[in-house]
Amino acid sequence: MLPQWIIEKKRDGQALSDEELRFFVNGYAAGTLPDYQMAALAMAILWRGMTPTETACLTRSMRDSGIVLDTASIPGPKIDKHSSGGIGDKISLVLAPLAAACGLVVPMISGRGLGITGGTLDKLESIPGYRVDLDEKELLRVLAACGCSLVGQTDRIAPADKKLYALRDVTGTVPSIPLIVASILGKKLAAGLDGLVMDVKCGSGAFMKTLSEAEALAEQLMQTGRQLGLSMAALITDMNQPLGRTAGNALEVREAIETLQGNGPADVLELTLELGALMLIVGKKASDRNSALVLLREKLRSGTAWERFKVMVRLHGGDVRTLEQPELLPAAPLREALPANRGGFIKQVDAERIGKACLLLGAGRTSVTDGIDHAVGFSGLKKIGEPVVKGEPLAVIHARDRESLAAARAMALDAFGYADAPVAPPVLIVKRVEPKRAF
Amino acid sequence: MLPQWIIEKKRDGQALSDEELRFFVNGYAAGTLPDYQMAALAMAILWRGMTPTETACLTRSMRDSGIVLDTASIPGPKIDKHSSGGIGDKISLVLAPLAAACGLVVPMISGRGLGITGGTLDKLESIPGYRVDLDEKELLRVLAACGCSLVGQTDRIAPADKKLYALRDVTGTVPSIPLIVASILGKKLAAGLDGLVMDVKCGSGAFMKTLSEAEALAEQLMQTGRQLGLSMAALITDMNQPLGRTAGNALEVREAIETLQGNGPADVLELTLELGALMLIVGKKASDRNSALVLLREKLRSGTAWERFKVMVRLHGGDVRTLEQPELLPAAPLREALPANRGGFIKQVDAERIGKACLLLGAGRTSVTDGIDHAVGFSGLKKIGEPVVKGEPLAVIHARDRESLAAARAMALDAFGYADAPVAPPVLIVKRVEPKRAF
Repeated sequence: MLPQWIIEKKRDGQALSDEELRFFVNGYAAGTLPDYQMAALAMAILWRGMTPTETACLTRSMRDSGIVLDTASIPGPKIDKHSSGGIGDKISLVLAPLAAACGLVVPMISGRGLGITGGTLDKLESIPGYRVDLDEKELLRVLAACGCSLVGQTDRIAPADKKLYALRDVTGTVPSIPLIVASILGKKLAAGLDGLVMDVKCGSGAFMKTLSEAEALAEQLMQTGRQLGLSMAALITDMNQPLGRTAGNALEVREAIETLQGNGPADVLELTLELGALMLIVGKKASDRNSALVLLREKLRSGTAWERFKVMVRLHGGDVRTLEQPELLPAAPLREALPANRGGFIKQVDAERIGKACLLLGAGRTSVTDGIDHAVGFSGLKKIGEPVVKGEPLAVIHARDRESLAAARAMALDAFGYADAPVAPPVLIVKRVEPKRAF
Repeated sequence: MLPQWIIEKKRDGQALSDEELRFFVNGYAAGTLPDYQMAALAMAILWRGMTPTETACLTRSMRDSGIVLDTASIPGPKIDKHSSGGIGDKISLVLAPLAAACGLVVPMISGRGLGITGGTLDKLESIPGYRVDLDEKELLRVLAACGCSLVGQTDRIAPADKKLYALRDVTGTVPSIPLIVASILGKKLAAGLDGLVMDVKCGSGAFMKTLSEAEALAEQLMQTGRQLGLSMAALITDMNQPLGRTAGNALEVREAIETLQGNGPADVLELTLELGALMLIVGKKASDRNSALVLLREKLRSGTAWERFKVMVRLHGGDVRTLEQPELLPAAPLREALPANRGGFIKQVDAERIGKACLLLGAGRTSVTDGIDHAVGFSGLKKIGEPVVKGEPLAVIHARDRESLAAARAMALDAFGYADAPVAPPVLIVKRVEPKRAF
């Protein structure tokens, strides 16, 4: 079996066998099959697609390229949430300790931001001392101690995916549903999960711009996940405006803390509760949405989730004082209001433009090797439907220097659109996805 | 400009600009742009195709990745012939000295065989001492001295093509017309040609299996070549049976010698004359086919072409005695007839199977690093339409050992098909291609 025969088969539109996919993925993980053959295969997959059976085989071979975390010694259902990525999405920081407080075990292996999309690991690293690079033993110890861990992918978990993820980014092979599904689920399966709740973002600030694209991804995720033994649920949620009122790493940590303390923005709270309810149902800690919401609200109100977050941060080496006194988190030297250039009702807050403005401020990276500035970003972002008078701040820009401030201001100003008449706020939970029957 | 942006643009079906193609090809030739990005782009080109303008730009950037041979100091029109590759195709060995004898300058940069297709360089190397690796200065000296050179691609001629050619072979990106056109013409333009005659093979032993595929390739070659200033002509010729009566390196050299001496098989002679006539017309050494054929026949009959071949071989370091006494060429220890298992008329001689049988004998290579056996192959191959009686030899197999002989015998026997009634021999010149007007 030569690698080029497998590439040619997929190029010609045929389905690959389990054996062929394993041969390719294992060779790639072992370094005996070169990047250029994987790049050609990835483009052929993007072109020709994959059958559900192929997607499941590819996912399984991603999982099996490394170790599978043995979470059996930790009691409780292992349930995770994964988002397809958006602007201002700090849900994981609130949801992981909240779900753990409700009795779930949440080994939340997270990623870094790339392009306009923020990354949970970057946000956590704005907490001084927080280590995202636990090894598997440390991770299991944290999970046993507090029920949740927000942590990076280790070299031994789905190493083929880690390599392919970086390759896809530089070879134009990111937007392929089978490759996205295999990447997400391969990692998740390696983390020893019982169930997974997907938050598929949809809109200008998301990878999936239209509902039908988001539905296609959600359905493939549900189907493949179930085929491989995961309990699955998914929401399609709005990403036409940033989530919450902040964008930027330390600023989002502050907003997550506020949400854990009961003072978060309505949309962050709503999405946390809806995803949390699905996690509890998937993990059989609640029988229906209503009883799940009651339990979740109680763990927030009582401070149990907030305490759990602080324990988790401490177990990761993070400085808990910065959570109790968020003014100790990294702060930008320049803060300037972005005044509305007219009055009316906010009709649009283009999430993609806010994401690009964050990149201009240095809050994100355009290449995986870029450093990032944890302090910069936006706070106090107006939301669609809110009234403004001319000159009123649409947001506060947090910047390192004058140049980046000016560039971000121009970019962010164009993100806002106005209407004279009142505008209804967008629906956050766009769709609850019921999977098609597996093939 | 990031390479992945260019890949994404082609992936999404857009045309690339001259600047983008040059950036990519130059980066690749310089080694700053990695194989994996070129592999992804090649697959995207195979998928989406290229406009004629893109193909011309890509071809030009292939040419410009190295030096362009300065043939201006050598008087006479620089005209070459190129074949898309087939089984038993030894035309170049006859045609280059014949065209030179008629007053053309023929810098024929040739390739090695890969898979079932033989390579002119491999055939030449069965002549003891023949050097295919001349540098540009030596090549110009040979051209000045005898008007033709059958030579390998140097490292400085179209280096981007040399690299990409090897990459395509292992990434499933060979069968793309724009990539084939850019590869052939990029090299040819770098050889300082005025005109080019294409022999596009069509049939079971060719890369293009159907007439419409062959036409598409021929038309793209004609169009792009003319756009870049080459005088062009093309024939589509039959490759359902091997050309001539031999397949295998030294055996084909012997057949080429016989043709130069006036004793070659009818089809080898016919194709040599038809391609030669087009070369003379393209090079303005003849005004029409008839006068061209008169001149070509005269140069064969008088022995001028044969003498020219010997001079060229001598200038390349080859041992001319082996041409005058071909029994001195490499010969296989085992020779065995392949007897017909029934009588009738030959209806089929599957060129692909004969090519595979040659591979089994060791006459070709399955990987670029394989060595080859110059002595082995087939001679005395029956042609479609010829009568046979049961037990009469269909061919003589030349083998190194018993094992390969047995394997090749079984493969070759299945290549032949029989009819009870007389069968008309296939038409060799399938089509003379007139180019569509350039866009």
